[in-house]
Amino acid sequence: MSQLAIHDGAASVPMTVLDRLSQVSVLRGVPTLSERLIALDRFVHDDLSAFELELDAIPRGARMIHRAAHHLLDLRGKHLRPLCVALTSRFGEGFTERARSLAVAVELVHSATLLHDDVVDLAERRRGQPTACVTYGNAASIFAGDWLLVAALRRIRQSGVEGVLDRMLTVIDEMIVAESVQLERRGKIAGAREDYFAIVEGKTAALFRWAMFAGARAAELPTAAETALERYGLHLGVAFQAVDDELDYQETGTGKDALADLREGKITFPLVVALERESGLRDRLEGLLAQGEVAADELGAIANTVRASGALAATRALAEDHVQRALLVLEELPAGPARDALVTVALASLERQS
Amino acid sequence: MSQLAIHDGAASVPMTVLDRLSQVSVLRGVPTLSERLIALDRFVHDDLSAFELELDAIPRGARMIHRAAHHLLDLRGKHLRPLCVALTSRFGEGFTERARSLAVAVELVHSATLLHDDVVDLAERRRGQPTACVTYGNAASIFAGDWLLVAALRRIRQSGVEGVLDRMLTVIDEMIVAESVQLERRGKIAGAREDYFAIVEGKTAALFRWAMFAGARAAELPTAAETALERYGLHLGVAFQAVDDELDYQETGTGKDALADLREGKITFPLVVALERESGLRDRLEGLLAQGEVAADELGAIANTVRASGALAATRALAEDHVQRALLVLEELPAGPARDALVTVALASLERQS
Repeated sequence: MSQLAIHDGAASVPMTVLDRLSQVSVLRGVPTLSERLIALDRFVHDDLSAFELELDAIPRGARMIHRAAHHLLDLRGKHLRPLCVALTSRFGEGFTERARSLAVAVELVHSATLLHDDVVDLAERRRGQPTACVTYGNAASIFAGDWLLVAALRRIRQSGVEGVLDRMLTVIDEMIVAESVQLERRGKIAGAREDYFAIVEGKTAALFRWAMFAGARAAELPTAAETALERYGLHLGVAFQAVDDELDYQETGTGKDALADLREGKITFPLVVALERESGLRDRLEGLLAQGEVAADELGAIANTVRASGALAATRALAEDHVQRALLVLEELPAGPARDALVTVALASLERQS
Repeated sequence: MSQLAIHDGAASVPMTVLDRLSQVSVLRGVPTLSERLIALDRFVHDDLSAFELELDAIPRGARMIHRAAHHLLDLRGKHLRPLCVALTSRFGEGFTERARSLAVAVELVHSATLLHDDVVDLAERRRGQPTACVTYGNAASIFAGDWLLVAALRRIRQSGVEGVLDRMLTVIDEMIVAESVQLERRGKIAGAREDYFAIVEGKTAALFRWAMFAGARAAELPTAAETALERYGLHLGVAFQAVDDELDYQETGTGKDALADLREGKITFPLVVALERESGLRDRLEGLLAQGEVAADELGAIANTVRASGALAATRALAEDHVQRALLVLEELPAGPARDALVTVALASLERQS
């Protein structure tokens, strides 16, 4: 069994995207995605094991906040952000103690935001299980988020790596502002496309970018490489979110409720596109959201309109476009197993099922 | 009109505590509390004006998190923690830019915890107004708290003062663990006295202590002075909380609902003492809390039992004891207007009405 959650199901999917991306030089003479994933797994296996050991060692005190935090951490996410730190560090001296510490920190920050988001969204399921706020209550989920955030910042501070703490504080600020934008525009459909990219960059891409930056700093890479890797992180983040948006329209696999984003009036890319294409959709959706609780059949009807508009294909195209941009950026980096691994991560992000 | 909220009403209260504390040498030849407060006001007037200007300059963006944050900040708290930073800095080179920055930071951290607490406690009123979570919603209050916390940490980081960021991260950790302890023991009355002091030290005293530490560090005071000032902060924090607990039993003035702590099953010192003295109280209270919503008359009956037990006098004695300890610590510091001002703050903390 692979350690990489992005592996699951991906190997069996026909990799037609490889054909569509074939003009990108880093893909020339490429093996299949299955072969790539096996190579990636081998390349990062020890690093991820070391990371997971350290994540497990986050204090499991008797306190409710500790239990609420581990409730989420133990459900093991995809660990994609720590993977970014690990792979980036392999362009230099590798996944050293300080790189590992930054990898744990990025997962803790990500987990902190999920704990607060689930309270805000009244979310009931995450990673296929009841959320921490359902099991331990909103208060414990809020304080557990605060606790993980502080634990992450202390770890970043203690790593002694230049510049990563300041940058993380900036990233968290961007994430919170993006959350606020998302909050304010709930149920209001105006300005959707523009807001969408502002939210995605702040909420998702900024943290991927930090993971690349942190890995580069820990490995003391030259500035040009660091900047290129950050751009990769940004594009990977947008692609990741676009695929996430697409998955909201699928019935199974994510561990979240299907159509959860739509029900909450969150702007996702399929919705942005469908609203531009279907003139009556805006009024229908605003009417529904104004009622508060949205009935399942009405939600299903809206989802069908979105699907029929071809918005899912447009979302896929957005994801592929950003994967392509991520791959083009990689051409600026030295060829080798680290670069190959980042190619695989970008490609696999298009094929993930959860 | 004095800038110091702790001034309000205090000057007219007979300062009998001065007699009871008369063995403390820093009080010898002391003027009345009224005279002391006038001197304090004069001594810190310019510093507090500079602080308030800087606090007002915290970004007022278009975002809901900014509005929710300023909803609280603009209601002006007592600014007691920033006052601690300012006065401590006056033992050295004074309220410099970096000391001011730390004073703003401590108020932001305090405000962040209030924004999260109000969501957790479902609090409706704070400083005489609807809470931010009532006006802007829980989500905005949670994210506004996150935003202020990060804004505080960035400011502390940028101050460049040695050791204050690490210490603040430790303090926030202590505050969150104390919140968790408080949460876990809601409705459970066992182990009350012991838990009470653990909660007070983490939730309240730790931040006062940091304020003294930060002022001392900004002013580059010798280690012995820094340590003494930290101990002062710890005792001031416990005294402050004890008076706060007492105020929960008064009908007016605090801007919070009376008996709010009791209604939420929070352990306060009057309750700790009453439970030790009134054997039937524990069962009555646990029975009430188990019902969920507590009726006003039942709450009033419990409050009367607490009052009749003499627990408020015991709470006052606790506060006075810690004020006395704070004053004794001040004997280790050089005499002068800064020390006199801290004497006044400690004394006035006993007389505050809000």
